[in-house]
Amino acid sequence: MAFDLFRARGDTPACEDVLHFNNAGSSLPPRCVVEAQTAHLELEARIGGYEASDREQAKWERAYDAVAALIGCDRSEVAVVENATRAWDMAFYAVPLKRGDRVLTARAEYVSNYLAMLQIAGKSGASVEVVPSDADGALDLEALRRMVDDRVKLVCVTHAAGNGGLVNPVEDIGRIVRQQSGALFLVDACQSAGQLPLDVDRIQADMLSATGRKFLRGPRGVGFLYVRRSVLGALEPPFVDLHAAHWTSAQHYEWREDARRFENWETNYASKIGLAVAVDYALEWGMEAISARTLGLAALLRERLAELRGVTVRDIGRVKSGICTFTVEGKDAFAVRDALRARAVNTSVSTIEAARLDFEARGLSQMVRASVHYYNSEDEVDRFCRELERCV
Amino acid sequence: MAFDLFRARGDTPACEDVLHFNNAGSSLPPRCVVEAQTAHLELEARIGGYEASDREQAKWERAYDAVAALIGCDRSEVAVVENATRAWDMAFYAVPLKRGDRVLTARAEYVSNYLAMLQIAGKSGASVEVVPSDADGALDLEALRRMVDDRVKLVCVTHAAGNGGLVNPVEDIGRIVRQQSGALFLVDACQSAGQLPLDVDRIQADMLSATGRKFLRGPRGVGFLYVRRSVLGALEPPFVDLHAAHWTSAQHYEWREDARRFENWETNYASKIGLAVAVDYALEWGMEAISARTLGLAALLRERLAELRGVTVRDIGRVKSGICTFTVEGKDAFAVRDALRARAVNTSVSTIEAARLDFEARGLSQMVRASVHYYNSEDEVDRFCRELERCV
Repeated sequence: MAFDLFRARGDTPACEDVLHFNNAGSSLPPRCVVEAQTAHLELEARIGGYEASDREQAKWERAYDAVAALIGCDRSEVAVVENATRAWDMAFYAVPLKRGDRVLTARAEYVSNYLAMLQIAGKSGASVEVVPSDADGALDLEALRRMVDDRVKLVCVTHAAGNGGLVNPVEDIGRIVRQQSGALFLVDACQSAGQLPLDVDRIQADMLSATGRKFLRGPRGVGFLYVRRSVLGALEPPFVDLHAAHWTSAQHYEWREDARRFENWETNYASKIGLAVAVDYALEWGMEAISARTLGLAALLRERLAELRGVTVRDIGRVKSGICTFTVEGKDAFAVRDALRARAVNTSVSTIEAARLDFEARGLSQMVRASVHYYNSEDEVDRFCRELERCV
Repeated sequence: MAFDLFRARGDTPACEDVLHFNNAGSSLPPRCVVEAQTAHLELEARIGGYEASDREQAKWERAYDAVAALIGCDRSEVAVVENATRAWDMAFYAVPLKRGDRVLTARAEYVSNYLAMLQIAGKSGASVEVVPSDADGALDLEALRRMVDDRVKLVCVTHAAGNGGLVNPVEDIGRIVRQQSGALFLVDACQSAGQLPLDVDRIQADMLSATGRKFLRGPRGVGFLYVRRSVLGALEPPFVDLHAAHWTSAQHYEWREDARRFENWETNYASKIGLAVAVDYALEWGMEAISARTLGLAALLRERLAELRGVTVRDIGRVKSGICTFTVEGKDAFAVRDALRARAVNTSVSTIEAARLDFEARGLSQMVRASVHYYNSEDEVDRFCRELERCV
């Protein structure tokens, strides 16, 4: 069945005015998402904030069902929090680690995750070890197999790297981690949710974090965390409040039963409703269809970019996502981004601070990042290359 | 100078349709706040999320200046985070505590803070001790003076209690804490910001947390944390990310210089802009004028409520805030709230789970909470009492 690009673009009025290849930053949302957010803000102003969240409970509760459908889990295993970083943090800092424990991660792990690992290594005495990459740049499965032992308590892997097209083989990784009882698998799906199909059982993830604003085309300032029911008892959320736990007597509290123990009471309900609408919208298209179109368009973009003089495509990995990175000979990446933006062409820049280990290994310091989504068109790929030629 | 109630209500169109005495829950925002939020959401959808935050940087950076003006600090001492609970958490969990250390708090401390203290007491071996209340129900200053010693590392006090009119004497408390070198003072200003003047130097607070949605009349899902520059070095933020720190080499990172080390990179920019507009709006009225009017209106409400048969006003403390609590003989508080809401009169309910120690000491389990703000009118106080009489 042909992809209904006409409808996808019609639902996204802005794509007629701006060539948006910054979906790995923050996507253009479909109209229904913005309308849901603003409608709720208006309702809050009209009847009161608490009164509005009471009245619209079904709409924000829908976020749990939608996410559950997206990643193949139960709604009780979902927490909706303020962003992917805090979702990941709430899971990561909940893992009990002590001297001698080992935490494994990949070379292209997202900076914020890696910093958190360094912080906890310093506090707990656990070690953080980077699994080498294979010849294609993904996490080396054989190396992982050799490194896993009973001191490994946690494996943290970013699914789709933010600094390039790399997609790590999370299902294969999950299979290896699962063989080591006592080791937990934490997947950062910040860049994959909304562009690649996700199934937490196939991945065998114990915890998985994601954001609304990127490929899910939801609001800024909202994300979610999946926590497998069977590992809840092995984790202690780093923060507690009256939503996460019940105050049972002066000296005691009891954690609530479900994954919402990783949330806190107050939230931006407009964003939560917007997330629900965005995920439902993605499900309507279907993740297989979205993924096929997005990855196909990115492959076309890489092909065209490779033909341009002075442009070097930098993506690694066997499987590549909708994120394309490249350098332009003799040009600063920020200057390229700014020149494109002046022509209503949106991209972003990946710098060494986003994934130091990966950049250093590859001798890079910065790249232009052009990230496509299913609502982008083949015409836009052509126009992008023409604009890029003019700018460099 | 007479308070311009006509203008205050004109800026808040909804107050003609709903009698909103739930300002301690979430205020009705002035029109300018909602317009700022929705305008930014629309801009994000039109040009892209990252592109919109770049273009409107002055608007969200203004949040730091506005908060600094509100509480009398430098903009570098302000972090804008997702809500007051997480603001408080980021400060509280950053205090290094070990076995033998003492944390002091008040009887009416907010539940979420108290639960966090219990969690850390369990983990660190520090003790949590409740300073007794004086005859009026506020923290007993003499008792505090006797309890403070060199093992006291932290004093946590909620300024205006959420479960009643109580205002704790934070300036007197700060003076006592300051005399004990090594003890930090963390003030929860969630219910006081926007209704009472706040000056972190007069309070001698080291850290202070607040929310947008309550008396500041800002958005839901945004709050702020003040951290005194001189205590930054004594604290380690419980989470780290690429915004809070710089990744300087494979094994090292450096915290950023200012209080934004307590933030994380991603945020809801529309809310942050809305907060800036809300705080600036409050500053235009002036906190002294707002406070005088709000407290005066609450005093009138208490007077009228006390005249109603079967109604008992439950507020404690010498100084009382805009929050009025009461019980109705033989009536469930939730039933009263719901009956009022059906008549477009908004209140909320305080239950024992919100402040167990205080409720238990006073033999209460729930109260109706009617919280007024400066835009409410004397006519509304009258109408509230009439509606309440009809409902009970």
